[in-house]
Amino acid sequence: MIAVLKTGVPEAQRQNLIGWLEGMGLKVHISEGEFHTVLGLIGDTSRVDMDLLGGLEIVESVRRISEPYKKANRKFFPDDTIVDVGGVKIGKGNFVTIAGPCSVESEEQIILVAKKVKEAGAQILRGGTFKPRTSPYDFQGLKADGIELLLEAKRETGLPIVSEIMNANHLPLFEEVDLIQVGARNMQNFELLKELGKTKKPILLKRGLANTLKELLMSAEYIMAGGNENIILCERGIRTFETYTRNTLDVSAIPSLKEMTHLPVIIDPSHACGHARMVPSLAYAATACGADGLIIEVHNDPKNALCDGAQSLTFEQFEEVTKKVQKVREAII
Amino acid sequence: MIAVLKTGVPEAQRQNLIGWLEGMGLKVHISEGEFHTVLGLIGDTSRVDMDLLGGLEIVESVRRISEPYKKANRKFFPDDTIVDVGGVKIGKGNFVTIAGPCSVESEEQIILVAKKVKEAGAQILRGGTFKPRTSPYDFQGLKADGIELLLEAKRETGLPIVSEIMNANHLPLFEEVDLIQVGARNMQNFELLKELGKTKKPILLKRGLANTLKELLMSAEYIMAGGNENIILCERGIRTFETYTRNTLDVSAIPSLKEMTHLPVIIDPSHACGHARMVPSLAYAATACGADGLIIEVHNDPKNALCDGAQSLTFEQFEEVTKKVQKVREAII
Amino acid sequence: MIAVLKTGVPEAQRQNLIGWLEGMGLKVHISEGEFHTVLGLIGDTSRVDMDLLGGLEIVESVRRISEPYKKANRKFFPDDTIVDVGGVKIGKGNFVTIAGPCSVESEEQIILVAKKVKEAGAQILRGGTFKPRTSPYDFQGLKADGIELLLEAKRETGLPIVSEIMNANHLPLFEEVDLIQVGARNMQNFELLKELGKTKKPILLKRGLANTLKELLMSAEYIMAGGNENIILCERGIRTFETYTRNTLDVSAIPSLKEMTHLPVIIDPSHACGHARMVPSLAYAATACGADGLIIEVHNDPKNALCDGAQSLTFEQFEEVTKKVQKVREAII
Amino acid sequence: MIAVLKTGVPEAQRQNLIGWLEGMGLKVHISEGEFHTVLGLIGDTSRVDMDLLGGLEIVESVRRISEPYKKANRKFFPDDTIVDVGGVKIGKGNFVTIAGPCSVESEEQIILVAKKVKEAGAQILRGGTFKPRTSPYDFQGLKADGIELLLEAKRETGLPIVSEIMNANHLPLFEEVDLIQVGARNMQNFELLKELGKTKKPILLKRGLANTLKELLMSAEYIMAGGNENIILCERGIRTFETYTRNTLDVSAIPSLKEMTHLPVIIDPSHACGHARMVPSLAYAATACGADGLIIEVHNDPKNALCDGAQSLTFEQFEEVTKKVQKVREAII
Repeated sequence: MIAVLKTGVPEAQRQNLIGWLEGMGLKVHISEGEFHTVLGLIGDTSRVDMDLLGGLEIVESVRRISEPYKKANRKFFPDDTIVDVGGVKIGKGNFVTIAGPCSVESEEQIILVAKKVKEAGAQILRGGTFKPRTSPYDFQGLKADGIELLLEAKRETGLPIVSEIMNANHLPLFEEVDLIQVGARNMQNFELLKELGKTKKPILLKRGLANTLKELLMSAEYIMAGGNENIILCERGIRTFETYTRNTLDVSAIPSLKEMTHLPVIIDPSHACGHARMVPSLAYAATACGADGLIIEVHNDPKNALCDGAQSLTFEQFEEVTKKVQKVREAII
Repeated sequence: MIAVLKTGVPEAQRQNLIGWLEGMGLKVHISEGEFHTVLGLIGDTSRVDMDLLGGLEIVESVRRISEPYKKANRKFFPDDTIVDVGGVKIGKGNFVTIAGPCSVESEEQIILVAKKVKEAGAQILRGGTFKPRTSPYDFQGLKADGIELLLEAKRETGLPIVSEIMNANHLPLFEEVDLIQVGARNMQNFELLKELGKTKKPILLKRGLANTLKELLMSAEYIMAGGNENIILCERGIRTFETYTRNTLDVSAIPSLKEMTHLPVIIDPSHACGHARMVPSLAYAATACGADGLIIEVHNDPKNALCDGAQSLTFEQFEEVTKKVQKVREAII
Repeated sequence: MIAVLKTGVPEAQRQNLIGWLEGMGLKVHISEGEFHTVLGLIGDTSRVDMDLLGGLEIVESVRRISEPYKKANRKFFPDDTIVDVGGVKIGKGNFVTIAGPCSVESEEQIILVAKKVKEAGAQILRGGTFKPRTSPYDFQGLKADGIELLLEAKRETGLPIVSEIMNANHLPLFEEVDLIQVGARNMQNFELLKELGKTKKPILLKRGLANTLKELLMSAEYIMAGGNENIILCERGIRTFETYTRNTLDVSAIPSLKEMTHLPVIIDPSHACGHARMVPSLAYAATACGADGLIIEVHNDPKNALCDGAQSLTFEQFEEVTKKVQKVREAII
Repeated sequence: MIAVLKTGVPEAQRQNLIGWLEGMGLKVHISEGEFHTVLGLIGDTSRVDMDLLGGLEIVESVRRISEPYKKANRKFFPDDTIVDVGGVKIGKGNFVTIAGPCSVESEEQIILVAKKVKEAGAQILRGGTFKPRTSPYDFQGLKADGIELLLEAKRETGLPIVSEIMNANHLPLFEEVDLIQVGARNMQNFELLKELGKTKKPILLKRGLANTLKELLMSAEYIMAGGNENIILCERGIRTFETYTRNTLDVSAIPSLKEMTHLPVIIDPSHACGHARMVPSLAYAATACGADGLIIEVHNDPKNALCDGAQSLTFEQFEEVTKKVQKVREAII
């Protein structure tokens, strides 16, 4: 950690600060410039409160040199992590396609979709049952019944399943769910993250609409600090000033996260743009950029879907996407 | 609701769409332009899924004319709401100053701060006990013990208290807390909002870092839909590209929310900038702009605060702020 | 154009407004809802000032149905435009790779780079000579001398050249430059755009850091309105809250612009991320997403480049990129 | 300047880098941590290319300790600057209200407005004659004729005048204009800034829609580096995700800029929100926050204004604003 002192700080105050820092077990290295003095803090700075230090009257600015995430940090764990989701491996060269409807609507629907996406090459089935809707008046999902239907589809097809959790109290319902999704709006619901850290379930952690990559890793760290290191990160579009697409897919997040962490990174092109017609292009872009997988909305009847029909592919479209994705993967090897 | 059709839509498809809309109980008004056909949908459109309609192949775009929030909407409830927090009224000309430390640290600390801020003119005491920290390794608050200490300070000074809730399971602990805060990171934790909607507790709902004013009102609507209409909105800085301040205080949110809703609106200048030295200026700006109140961090010893010391005022600074805020209020009457 | 009137507008005021609109030659179509009246304005609304109309006391909101860009609009000109740059075609399936150093530094340098990038498959040579630097104290480019050196490299290799213009007064210097670049910071320098509209030169128009796609097209429209329709659009990263990369590459801009306009769209992965090590991944992503070309910084000695060395590829890296880009193109056909 | 080296850098490469830095006349101070080595660069680092240094393979990150702006920097020039605009002083406690129409439309109009705003307390008259409009089909201003009319109004009322320049070639027309405005879209039109640096005219420099405060100061530095230090900075709203207001007024920019620079700072509430009805609230907020002045759009007939009528105050509204602004100023002394 680096702290830059203001100009003209009285020696006594400076000694005071240095003493305080040394009292926390840090070594303090002093470097004098013409206009500034820079203190280099050496040792375990992970518990130093940057804001507090930066707020002191004699300090101009503070900067962390070491990242505050440890278990998620590639520096300390250079090898790619592989997460096993009901027998399907993700990461370290294992590419996975997850597909299914935004919402589970009925037994017929989810089983039909499960069979079709499996035929087209999907390895994991997605389906929402607890839905975080902006409006309290919108359809909120089939809840526990939806989980039952997903499990039925799992039994029928053998596909592992993923579904979103919104409340740690629902964890017992997710016992047989293979991958638990934390949605963008709950990325910093730290109470939920802590509870998930106590399980051994693979977690699909989505980036919040306006969260930095560092914050995403700090949220992963919350889960990992509890003992659960089975985490898959997911970029799903961020909020910017552009309104032509629902969100802006940040493909740079892929190579960036690959540098920062050893965890697998997948992309959700459906939520990123909100328009089915753009999903294929974004899926190819994400694959070409080095993603470890995709999560795509596919529906038997997008026009009459109970939610997010606008961004769902038909079976035919999805089949074409999986084929081309495979070709793109070969192109960049 | 307005739906714009693409050019050259076959008549049969158009009739199909109109039939479908009428089947939902809507009247459809057709307006033909040179390049577009516009459908005006009249009736209860609050349940029409905009994204679905907009995603149909023949539809170019869709736009809501009526706001999706009802109970929070000034159009339907033109009179300013007054929220009563343990006897202190907020809204409709009742201005309130809330003050206290970021975190409750000890009995001595919270009682000292409570007495001092009361002397300086604060009407409600704030104090965090469950702290949403970005890092799992940072101080997470005194939790239940902190609530006890806050209640002790309430008994000593008579000040109503406000504290943040992060988990609906903790609600029993908040029985005697006068105002329950939902933090920015939980603004769209819909499960929490629903539980708060079942209580009669006044709620301080903070705007998320990257949430629109409309989304803030939809979150208020979640609570109100459950039957609890005692809501105070709080703008606390939004995330932008500027990094000199921690966040960017959106003062325009005040007159904007005043148009959109009847709920009281307060400002948190401390979190908005992250620097104690700027808090007074922002507090005056918020007051001049028409806010119904302020929530300000005040600490007995900012340098040694366990969190957010950088943005806390000393007692002397806070006293000056309350005096000038009063003068600014008189200036804009 | 659609105008939504407020509730309870007196009939006289409404008639007044309608009369005023009809006076502008528009037909006004009235649609009455329960809470709102919607006016549909039919005819040439391109000259109606939306802000003015929306600012009237009785008007709640206004929305354009027709896009304000005409010549750049795919609706009116559905066929893809092909731009010819010194014999190299871009658009409608013609993919182009532009490469070269950020700044032209010397005759040896630019000729060496030109030969090497040509060998590796580049079809156009880039090189900055007038440099828009944030600081007045940074290297500002070789200016007119740089143009001379670029022309020398063009004569040596036969590659058409592209360079940025910052001042319409410099146009005579660009007589033999094949493609004139308008940088992101000048995207709304309307005086410059107007002058370029009077030439017949192909223009490479870069999107501003915080400009919407619609604004990009309005800037293209400025050039086209003057009579010059040879425009290539370029996305080069937008400004968001994320700071790990210099900017955020908006790949969705590719399919979005393809819907909105017939003009070719290329991507600049070098400026988008600012890190050479990420340029290949972003180049593949852009290609997979349907871009018509790439503009990439390549330098003989990135470490000692006079500007933006951090984002320049070496010759070897660039050669690998062009090979894989070709494979990605084949994958998505 | 601080450079953080990656872990495990071979000694030879490190010596190489240090030698290179010393070759630029810098002293290099080495500080070894457990996981990183930090180099402190002491001396004139204003010409070191941060991006280049940060792009080297062995360097993890680089950070400037000294600001890259010198003449605009309060550290080197602690005293508030006073800018004299035709006899009206701005800065160091001198508060100024600038008012007038968005566009000059006719002699009668501008003289009427000039008289009225002077009566209400405005000290400088604004009026646009070269208008930067997003669409080439919108009214572009009266240009040279408009300047003539402004000068006529100046002679009639004695008010100094301010108008926007879009092209350095127009400078001769601005000979008698007291204050030359650089609009938000031209904030980084460096060619224009350089030309203005050669004059002695006071310059009103507006912040770009998505420019940081540091970039604003770098643009001021461009003008100051040329020898012209008469600069007034203006915040006029930034672009964020919120769309209820046209832009988001960043009031924190006021105390922030006051720390960073000695130049006066004024606020444009009219462009910041785009709605006349919110202008008063924002004007009071800006004043309470410590601005040195305001620039407000006032029109004799907002409904029929040729541009931006939506955000213009009537004479009556403006008069009330100036009175309350005065009271707010007294409140915060």
